[in-house]
Order: sequence, then structure tokens, then C-alpha cells
Amino acid sequence: MAGRNHLFVPGPTNTPHDVLSAMHLPMEDHRSPIFPKLLFPILQDLKTTFRTETGQCFVFPATGTAGWEVALTNCLNMGDKVLIYRFGQFGHLWAEAARRLGFDVEVHQVEWGKGIPLDHLEARLKDDKNHEIKAVLATHNETSTGVTSSIPGVRKALDAAHHPALLFVDGVSSIASIEFRQDEWGVDAAISGSQKGFMLPAGLAILGFSQKALAAAGTSNFPRSFFSLQDMAASNKDGYTPYTPSTPMLHGLKKALELLLAEGMDTVYARHYRLAEGVRRAVAAWGLQLCAHPGFESDTVTAVVVPADKDARDVISTAYSKYNLSLGAGLSEVAGKVFRIGHIGDMNEVALLGAIAGVEMAMLDHSFDIKAGSGVGAALEYYRSAAR
Amino acid sequence: MAGRNHLFVPGPTNTPHDVLSAMHLPMEDHRSPIFPKLLFPILQDLKTTFRTETGQCFVFPATGTAGWEVALTNCLNMGDKVLIYRFGQFGHLWAEAARRLGFDVEVHQVEWGKGIPLDHLEARLKDDKNHEIKAVLATHNETSTGVTSSIPGVRKALDAAHHPALLFVDGVSSIASIEFRQDEWGVDAAISGSQKGFMLPAGLAILGFSQKALAAAGTSNFPRSFFSLQDMAASNKDGYTPYTPSTPMLHGLKKALELLLAEGMDTVYARHYRLAEGVRRAVAAWGLQLCAHPGFESDTVTAVVVPADKDARDVISTAYSKYNLSLGAGLSEVAGKVFRIGHIGDMNEVALLGAIAGVEMAMLDHSFDIKAGSGVGAALEYYRSAAR
Amino acid sequence: MAGRNHLFVPGPTNTPHDVLSAMHLPMEDHRSPIFPKLLFPILQDLKTTFRTETGQCFVFPATGTAGWEVALTNCLNMGDKVLIYRFGQFGHLWAEAARRLGFDVEVHQVEWGKGIPLDHLEARLKDDKNHEIKAVLATHNETSTGVTSSIPGVRKALDAAHHPALLFVDGVSSIASIEFRQDEWGVDAAISGSQKGFMLPAGLAILGFSQKALAAAGTSNFPRSFFSLQDMAASNKDGYTPYTPSTPMLHGLKKALELLLAEGMDTVYARHYRLAEGVRRAVAAWGLQLCAHPGFESDTVTAVVVPADKDARDVISTAYSKYNLSLGAGLSEVAGKVFRIGHIGDMNEVALLGAIAGVEMAMLDHSFDIKAGSGVGAALEYYRSAAR
Amino acid sequence: MAGRNHLFVPGPTNTPHDVLSAMHLPMEDHRSPIFPKLLFPILQDLKTTFRTETGQCFVFPATGTAGWEVALTNCLNMGDKVLIYRFGQFGHLWAEAARRLGFDVEVHQVEWGKGIPLDHLEARLKDDKNHEIKAVLATHNETSTGVTSSIPGVRKALDAAHHPALLFVDGVSSIASIEFRQDEWGVDAAISGSQKGFMLPAGLAILGFSQKALAAAGTSNFPRSFFSLQDMAASNKDGYTPYTPSTPMLHGLKKALELLLAEGMDTVYARHYRLAEGVRRAVAAWGLQLCAHPGFESDTVTAVVVPADKDARDVISTAYSKYNLSLGAGLSEVAGKVFRIGHIGDMNEVALLGAIAGVEMAMLDHSFDIKAGSGVGAALEYYRSAAR
Repeated sequence: MAGRNHLFVPGPTNTPHDVLSAMHLPMEDHRSPIFPKLLFPILQDLKTTFRTETGQCFVFPATGTAGWEVALTNCLNMGDKVLIYRFGQFGHLWAEAARRLGFDVEVHQVEWGKGIPLDHLEARLKDDKNHEIKAVLATHNETSTGVTSSIPGVRKALDAAHHPALLFVDGVSSIASIEFRQDEWGVDAAISGSQKGFMLPAGLAILGFSQKALAAAGTSNFPRSFFSLQDMAASNKDGYTPYTPSTPMLHGLKKALELLLAEGMDTVYARHYRLAEGVRRAVAAWGLQLCAHPGFESDTVTAVVVPADKDARDVISTAYSKYNLSLGAGLSEVAGKVFRIGHIGDMNEVALLGAIAGVEMAMLDHSFDIKAGSGVGAALEYYRSAAR
Repeated sequence: MAGRNHLFVPGPTNTPHDVLSAMHLPMEDHRSPIFPKLLFPILQDLKTTFRTETGQCFVFPATGTAGWEVALTNCLNMGDKVLIYRFGQFGHLWAEAARRLGFDVEVHQVEWGKGIPLDHLEARLKDDKNHEIKAVLATHNETSTGVTSSIPGVRKALDAAHHPALLFVDGVSSIASIEFRQDEWGVDAAISGSQKGFMLPAGLAILGFSQKALAAAGTSNFPRSFFSLQDMAASNKDGYTPYTPSTPMLHGLKKALELLLAEGMDTVYARHYRLAEGVRRAVAAWGLQLCAHPGFESDTVTAVVVPADKDARDVISTAYSKYNLSLGAGLSEVAGKVFRIGHIGDMNEVALLGAIAGVEMAMLDHSFDIKAGSGVGAALEYYRSAAR
Repeated sequence: MAGRNHLFVPGPTNTPHDVLSAMHLPMEDHRSPIFPKLLFPILQDLKTTFRTETGQCFVFPATGTAGWEVALTNCLNMGDKVLIYRFGQFGHLWAEAARRLGFDVEVHQVEWGKGIPLDHLEARLKDDKNHEIKAVLATHNETSTGVTSSIPGVRKALDAAHHPALLFVDGVSSIASIEFRQDEWGVDAAISGSQKGFMLPAGLAILGFSQKALAAAGTSNFPRSFFSLQDMAASNKDGYTPYTPSTPMLHGLKKALELLLAEGMDTVYARHYRLAEGVRRAVAAWGLQLCAHPGFESDTVTAVVVPADKDARDVISTAYSKYNLSLGAGLSEVAGKVFRIGHIGDMNEVALLGAIAGVEMAMLDHSFDIKAGSGVGAALEYYRSAAR
Repeated sequence: MAGRNHLFVPGPTNTPHDVLSAMHLPMEDHRSPIFPKLLFPILQDLKTTFRTETGQCFVFPATGTAGWEVALTNCLNMGDKVLIYRFGQFGHLWAEAARRLGFDVEVHQVEWGKGIPLDHLEARLKDDKNHEIKAVLATHNETSTGVTSSIPGVRKALDAAHHPALLFVDGVSSIASIEFRQDEWGVDAAISGSQKGFMLPAGLAILGFSQKALAAAGTSNFPRSFFSLQDMAASNKDGYTPYTPSTPMLHGLKKALELLLAEGMDTVYARHYRLAEGVRRAVAAWGLQLCAHPGFESDTVTAVVVPADKDARDVISTAYSKYNLSLGAGLSEVAGKVFRIGHIGDMNEVALLGAIAGVEMAMLDHSFDIKAGSGVGAALEYYRSAAR
């Protein structure tokens, strides 16, 4: 099929060519005297993207999913109680992971399309007089529904309740793309992966821990080995890793960090907002609804609800097979009801307008009642007025 | 600047990732026993793309511009008369190259936007009773104006005049993208380059010669060395080259030919027509004119005339600096009057719709009287109805 | 520093250029309908390299070190007793991982340089009347000492004792390079990683499980999530993975498997033997000793003992800084006493002779009593006589 | 065949991985506003490698062979007399190119293995009272015989004869590897190519012209077009090229120049001497002769004469097919009599020692009377003592 595939799933995201090329290099000895010159700056620059000065960043050769486990198994004790709100597939899976690992998981169901109910959270925390809840697990950006929850709001709830629980945040599809401030928001474990805002292939769990979380890691009794934070920290201190790292991934991460820092994190956030807002204008022009309720719209992925008589899977399938355009499917509770447009990472207006046009074609092919060019027109009018 | 550059100049074209990767390999000995296993199939597959069975294809380590010179200096004698119609910048340059090389160049001016005037040609050839004209130089696809001339028409004129002149065709921006049939059309020297339909970087002049042209090359007295067809033919016969070839470019060409032949030349032609027609629908929706007069529209590049009170360079400059979209500029006589959208090579609908949307943004930024989304809407309506 | 780095550590090994290039490609949707066409053949071809027809292979996005944990946590119950012989750093670390995970680890010390004492093993197993030992952990190739243990011998001991313990084998630096036969040897969990015989960067734990092990995984009570074999098996059944895979690594693995299978596993084994034997001839010509005792010599890595008055770290340091040659250091108990030459993976005679010559230079620089050219001469005499 | 091919032909040379990766990038518009930021520094840095401050460097999309033609056709008039000494295949071909282009070529035969006879040259120039000789063509490094001629000596002869002839130097296999000083030596046209000291694939003719040569180019009457220096100079002045350049090759050249300048040209020269001297020690240890007579030994390629009863082609063939080692063959007059070891470009000791060992194997396989390890031993003893 001629022409490139257009990748608009919410991850893996498009890897910039410079990053791909930085990863294409011969293997090297990870125990060489110069290896620390590669690792140290990466760990330092990561802190800039997590917006932490007092915390510490770590890279594990695994995925963001493993990041959940790294946070849970290092900072908690066996059987600890954790609190989580479930408003999408990834929150669901995180809760499930915690449950399997033997934690006492208190799950609260939230309507998919909304985020963490801050009032409920505050009340629940205040109610937990004995501080049985050891950690609050918050999904910052729920990829499955295109919903962003307020992490400052979660912190405020914890503070209002004077609750000492650790705050773990799934920032897999938010960190390095939309606003995230680990120190300011008091996040104890921030979890991300390489294949979203960091614009790399999957294969790295990237985490930031507060000093409070690191201290907890020192006393945890959970049986762990590969994901041991202490082992990683001990090796990192000298610029090495406890087992063979993927040096190509590290070189790619180094290059990706260079790109992010050159653009500037605030500019990165603003760009993601601008790109997302254009998509939302398109959706409005089509007369369709977002899965996200007002105030919860994500700037990295937009989940679009199709009319009741349509199946979103048809749109996705046609976009892929007829137009070489990859969209995200609705998962679990919203399967068939939404399609998702990922606009995270290495992305700009022209690329996204092509995708919006592709979505229009696929919807028209399935007799959606929309006007050809309406969504693209609304988006591009916004982009050209909002462009830097 | 985040996101990829969107390359819509009419060459160099977008190189497919598989082709780029095929070129990323260690150097190798071009005199090794296995080198012919690389070269022979390339020379054979090229014949399929030139649509010649009786002719022979050659690859010189230079560019399409050098291809003009290869044809002229190998098949003609010093000072021979050649006939050319000048209706764009590349025809102009070819005539100029012939003049510098000492040929007696008869140039006929044609309004830019039109192609070869076949009646005039036939009359001129009939008038040349003594067959002083040794070659007719025909630009198949004039990249600067987005004009395609009829090469079957040129052949018919030659035949009608019973004229023995050689027919040289500049197919740099047509071969391997729009219909080209060397044998059927009686083309004696067909000239192309690597950076257009062959989807490679610049660096190869790719030519097809008829047996008549090869015979002429055997008697030519023009002083030549590097571009000697005989030397190349003699080495090629054994599967080698007279001087060091770029083995990465050959590996890239091998992969590009695989892609072209897998798609099928007729499908390649149909795809270029379909993509171009969408662009023309967009131009019509904008209420703008093509540089090409009716019947001369090119399927590889569209030159769009801006209103008299606008400067096309502003559109191009804004597209590039604000939206990272590279368009082709108007050259020479049409500088400032047209911008060009290249849609040749590795291209598909979604990519092109993004570019059309980008053009809309740039035009709106310069207060063109167009409706946002109108061009994209017209194009996508066409694409979805015309898609395979 | 001009010229390439010469990588002769026992891993990561040299990645063939074709494999690197296969990994250099745009990201893709791992939930696309064509993803299974990538994954299924990989899982199938892996079985050929593990030499299993009845078992099943799995790929986790982690490293070989994680592979140990995958085997332990999926097939055993919490606190189960496991038996391991410690005769090198990697056996040591495996035992340590098991201990941290809460297993009851029975470690037997063995002199470094020797392998598993089969008589002792058989006696111990026979002694374990109540079958308290649930798994025997066997390091097939101990990278730190260049020692290969007999896995058929371990199987024989288990059978002689009629002991039902599972047999877990660390084949990280043996599988896909030296003889390994999962079915024939009755291995229940065979553990490897991407960065050794599979010639890729680190980043994949690659495992083969017998039906017996898979059955055990179905009843295990160990708390696990990311490394859940059942989740992986369930997703793999449909050609997918439970979380985002590294598609570049999978494409690289596919290409690496193509190379391995084209060469043929038996030829791969024979090549590793031949290359290793040349190194051993060189060591003998230098008048030095192997760390491995007779009968335990590894064909993937050779650990060379330096004379008592020398420090192996000097050889390694000089080789690296003066000659751009990376050798493996002695670890833990043999630090300073041995240097290691890795000859695993994508390797041939000329490359290895260069390394042997480099080692000679570094040893001469530190006044080793050896004759310049003696080791290389012995090795090349062997290679040319033994070459296919 | 496992393991890399070992490329020791005298060109194309080994391309550093960083250079290969710099060339792996999407196509770009060569008429963009930022293109000059790529081209200008390249043209400037080239001057450092040619060692010219007063001259000007140019890059043509062709090969070194075309460079001969660029110099001849731009700086001379049709039919001009040129003087050349023929002492190898490449001098032969250059004379032949000049002859075909219609120049009056005065060729003096010199025994292959020797270089330009300076006394004879001086006498001949003095004898040319009417200055009929318009240019002296000097092969600096004759790749086919491994012979380096003294260019300062040629300059001295011209000056002693007060002869105004232009001095053209074929520096294809010398510039950017062995000492070359365009200004100091009064070279009017220095010709090189991308695939030798510049460590790139073939595809670029790289030239340096003195002001005297540029002035001559302004008055030459030779018919030329593609290779017009004036066109190139006119476009280069603004940072562009007269026709589509290979942007990947330019990016590769930029990176290669970075590497060369970081190493420092004098260090590059010293490294090539050191590496070559080791090869010569090996040849001496084998009891064989160089093709080059004393005082003419090249530091970029060594041609080794085989005993009268041997055929060098057997050595080359065995090295290639049995050991994956590519050596250079003897050409023309020395076919079968010599094999050549290229040691130009991105090369270091360990790589070259591997090749020397490979040569030993191939010679022993053909019953050469040499001692295994003797050549390698002699070379490595030299390398370790001479290393920086």
C-alpha cells in the first residue's frame, strides 16, 4: 500500500526520525567507563520533564504497565489498602494489577467520561480516621476515554483530610505532553512509559519518586527482585544499572529529551492543548459528542462518541483498511461506542488535519450525517488563529 | 519544531521508510563476485517501469539533469540540430544544456501552461525535408507548470512526417508515476532520475535507450568519458560498472522497484491520477485556476495560480515557516504567480489531505477569499468515492 | 577515536546490520489486524531455536534477569524450596533473586571454574524423599567463568532419583548459540534474553515452557501481574500481547530468527565451537589457563586467568582505552583474576582474530611473558584447518 | 554467513555508523530557506581537509572519476596538451579520459611500483619552451600499485622550469587520509571522491580549485553543462546547487567532516601512517615484497607481490569466500601478481590485525611459505609501541 501509515492511536506514538536514528547504533558495553556519561544526563533531564527537583527518576527496562507494579511493590507492604477510582480501562487494569499482587484494593466506580470525584475522595479520606489507606492511585489521563483528572485536586483532597497516604499517579499518557508537576502537586510515585510523550518505542517504564516514596521503599516487605528500586538506585548512583540495559533505547531517550527540552515543557503543553482543541472543534462541527464530560477533556487523546445507530468499529476498520489511518478503538465498556484520535507526542497541525480528514472520509463511508470538510475546516480555522 | 516536515515539492519526493532502511548498510566491494546479483535484477526491473522490452536501461551516478546530457552526448554528433518546445523551466534548462554543449538548438516558445503543440510539430517536421533535425527533445511532464504533454502525439507527428529524428523524452517527473510506455510510444532515449517516481534521494540518472539510440551511440563523435554509454554498457554486460557505484543507492533502488512492481505500474498510474484529481477538485472548490490549460493537467504536480493581487511566495513561505509544509515555488516566468503541490511518489490520501488543509491555512492567513474546509472537503469526497 | 569499537563482551553481543535496520521503522498500532502476522511466526520460530515442539515460547518486554523471575513466580508457590548450585556470578544472582522473592533457596557452593556436580545433585535428589525440592535451578552457561554445565546430566540425575522437581535452566548465554535441546533434555523453563545468541539489544526476556511448567503456572499462588504467564498466553493465543510490546524489537527478533534458521541451529552450534576452540588454542599458546576446568569450557565466552602477579583489570583497561577493544571483566570472586573474551552471536574468524591480537597487545603492554603473534598464529592455524 | 564482512579494499571504505545514520533521514526541500545552513559549513570545512585557504571547494553529485573530467573540461580549452605519467591503472584511466575528451595527451610510461620521475618531469617542462603543456596531471596516490608520488616534488619541478602549466592532482585516495596541502603545494585542481578518506558511499566528486584554476574556468571553451564549475559556483554563492543534490549524502559529508576535524587532519595523517607501517612490517615478516618501490609506499593501500609461483587471485578468492574478507585485486598489468590491503578511512589497529590474520590464513591455505602469526605478530608489536 503506497504512502505511509498514519498513526493516531494514543500510543505508541510517532517516533521522530532523529530519535529512531539515534537508536540505530552498534551495541556497546554497558559496563564501560563511559556508560555513566550516557545515563547520568538522562536521569537528570527526566527530572525536568517530571517537574521534580527534590525527587528522583528511574528507568526500568519494561513498560508503563510494569511501572504500576514498580510503584506498588516497592513503596507498600504486602496487603496494604489502596484506593482507586475506576473510570476507564487503564484505571481498571491498574486496580486489577494491585488486586492480583495481593493488595487490599478499594475501587470506586465512576461513570466513564468523568474523572476522579474530588469531593467524594476528600470525604472518603476524612472518613479514614485510622489511615488504613496507604496509597491513592490516580489515573491522570485515562487513555481509554480521553479524560484528564485533576491531580492538584487530588493533592488538595489529601491535604484537606490531613491524610498521609502516598499519591501514586499514572502519568503514562500525560507526562512529557500535558501539564504535570510532580513536586508542586506532591506526587509520590509518577509513572510513565517510553511510548507516549517520550516518543520512543515501548520498552521503558519511566518513574519519578518523591523522597517520601523512596523512604517507604526502604522499609517495604513486598517480595521483589527485578523491579527493586533499591537495586536500581544503588547502581544508578554510580551511573550503571543492575542488569543489562537497552543501550539503543537509552540513546533514543537521550535524543527525545533533547527535543523536549529544546521545545520547552511549557511549549510542549501548549502545543498539545492547541492540537487537541482543534480536534474538539472538528468534533463539534460534526455535531458529535466527546466521551469526556466538560472539564475532563484530555489534550493527548480524544474519544469521540458515535451516534447510537453506528458502530465505531466500522469507522476504525475503514480508516485502517481503506485509508491507512490507524485510530484507537473503544475498549471494554465503550467498545463500539467511541473511536479515539491520539494526538500525543511528535505531532503538528498538518499531520492532524490529515487524520481529521481521514476520519471524515471513514464516517461518510458509513453514512454519518456530516458535511465533508466541516471538521477539517473548523480545526484549521482554529489552528491558524491559535498558531504561535 | 515538533512533528514531521510535510514534503510536497515535486521532488525530491518522500522516500519510503523501507527504502531508506535498505540504503542503511555497510559499504561493500563493488568488484565482488556477488555484485552482479545486485545489479542485474535492477537493470531488468527498470525495463518494466520504463515499459520497454526491446530497449535497455542504464543507471549513472549523477542526477536527472545529467541524464539530458547522457542522451545528447552519446546519441548525437557534435553540432547536430535538435528541436525543442519551451513551455516551462525544465524545458528551458534542457534547451540551454544542449546549446552549451554546442548543439544547434531550435527552440519554439509555447505559452507556459500548455504543452507541445502537436500540429505545429508535425508541420515543422514535414517542412524539414533534409532531415536536418536529428532529435526531438520532448518534456513529458513539465514540473514547473504542472503540464503533461502527449508523447504518443509526438510520436504520431514524427511518423506522419516520416521523420527519422530520434525522440528524446524528459520523463524525470513522469516515469514510474504516470503512464509512460517507451516501446509503444517509440521513445529513443527516456530520461529519469532517482528522486521522483523512484522515491529515492537524488543521485542517479536513470535512462532507457531504444536499439536505434544505442546504434547511434556507437557512431557519435561527441567527446565524452564519464557519461559514455558504451563504457557503461560494456561493464553492465558482466554485471559491473565502469567506476565505483553507490551501493546504498542501488540497494535503495532495488527496494523501490520491489515496491513499484508489487503495486503494479498500472495501479501506480491510477493512484497518481486519483490523488491529483482530488487536488484539482480542491482547487476548483477554492475558485482558483490551474496553471495547466485543460487537457494538459499533470498527475504528479499541480501548479495553482493565485489571484492577481496575491503573491504565491507568501503562501509558500507561511506554509513552510508556520506549518512545516514544503510546497514548490513558481519558477522563472511564473515566479510569485503559482505555488505547486507535488503529489508524486510515495503518497496517499490522508497525507495529501493534510497538505491541502495546510494550503488552506496559508491562503487564509493571506486573506484569500476561500472557505475553510472547502478544498479539503471537495478532495475527500472525491477520494472516498474513487478509492479502490 | 577512529575505527569501530570491537565488542567482545559476552553480551550484549554484536547486532547484525540487517537486524539493526529491521528495527529502524516507524511505530505501528499493536492492536492492528495485521499484528498477529508479526507475532505468530516469531513465537513459532523461537520453538525451533529452543528445540521444543511440545513446549511453548514467550517473549516478555524485560531482560533475561526478569526471565528468572518469570519462571520462579509463575511455576512455583510462595515459599517453595528450590535447589541451586552457585559456581559463578549469575548463578549467585539467580539464587539471590529467588531468596528475595521469598523462596526457600538451598544453595550449594561449587568452585568457580567448575559446573554442576552431577553426582552430588543425584545424591541430594535421592535424599529428598518427600520431594520438598520443587525446582532445580541450573545455570547452563555461567557467563562469569566461561563454564558450561551438562543439562542432560542434570536431567539424568532427576530421572535417576525419580524426582518430580521442575527443571529451570538459565540459558541466557547458551540458547541460540550452543547446543540446547529443551524437549530432549526435559527442561521445564528455559530462560534466555535478547542480547546474547539472539543478537539483539537487551529488552526481551525470551522463555520456553514445557507443558508441565505451564500446568504448574495454572495453580501457582505467587502474587504476580506484569509477569503473568497466563495473561501472556491468553493474549498470545490471538496474536496479541497484554500490554504494549516493542514492535521494533519484535521486527528485529523476526530478522534475527531468519538469520539463525537460515544458518541452521546445528551450524550455529558448530560455528560457536569452532570459534571458541581457536580462542582456547590461543590461550594455550600464551601459556595461560582457562578459568573453566577441563570438560566445562564454554563455547560462548572464554575466561582467561592471568598470572598471579598481574591484574586482569589492567589488560581490560588498556584494551579499551588504547585499542578500542571491549573485553569482559572478572566479576566478584574472580575480579582482577580473569578477563573474558565473548565470542557469542554474530561473529566470525577474522573479527575474533583481531580481538585475540588486541588481547596480545594489551598483555604485552603489561609485560606478560608471551610471544607476539603466538596466540593469533595458533588460532588461525586452527581456524583455517577447521573451516567449513 | 555469520559475522560481518571485513572490507579492506582501497575504496569504498568503511563508513562509520554515525555517518550512515546521519544519512538515514527523510528527504527535504533543497530550495528551502535553511538549506544554505547545511551547505555553507560543508564547503568551508572541506577547505580544511584540502588544506586550502585561498582556493574553493566544490561537490558534484557524481564520482571521483567524474572529478577528472570536471577539472579537465572546466579549466582547459579543447585540444589542449596535457602531460601525464602512467604508473598504474588509475593514471592510465585518467589519461584515457583526457584522450577521449579530445585533449592532446602526452603519456610517459613509468614502471608500475614507482611514482612520478621528478627529474624527468623537470627536464620535460624545461624543454617545453613554448609552454604548450597546459596542465600536468599527477596521480598523488596510485591505488592500483600502492604508490604515493611526491606532489611537492612536482610543484618544485614546475617552479624550477618556470612553467605556467596548471597542476591537476588526483587525490581520490589521498585527500582526507594522507598528507595533502593544496595551497602549500600549489595544486590548481585537487580531485577527490566521497568513498575514500571521506568515508562515505560513492556518489560525490569533491574538488578544490585554486584561484588560478577558477580564472582559467572563466575562459575555457570546452562544451560542458552538467559539470559546469561556473554554474556550481554561482549557485553555491547563495548556498544552493544548480540541480537537485543528494541531501542524505550532504548530511553524511557534514558528519564525516565533523569526525575528521575532531580527530584533526595531522592526527588523521599520522594514524594512516601508523596503520600502514604495521602492514608493511607484516609483509616483511612474511618475506614478501611490496609492489611499491622504496620511497613510494602508500599509507592508504598496500599492494603485496606474491611469489612467482602463486596467483594473487587465489588468495583474494579464498579470503572472500572462506573468511568473508574483501581484499583488493591486482588490476591490469599486475593482475594475479599482487593483492591489495586497503587501510584507508575509518580504521584502527584491531580491525587491521584481523585482516592481516585473514590474509595469513588465505596464504597458508594456498601453501605460501609463511609462519602462522608472523605477520600479525610483527604488526602488533609495532602498533603497541607506536600507539598514541
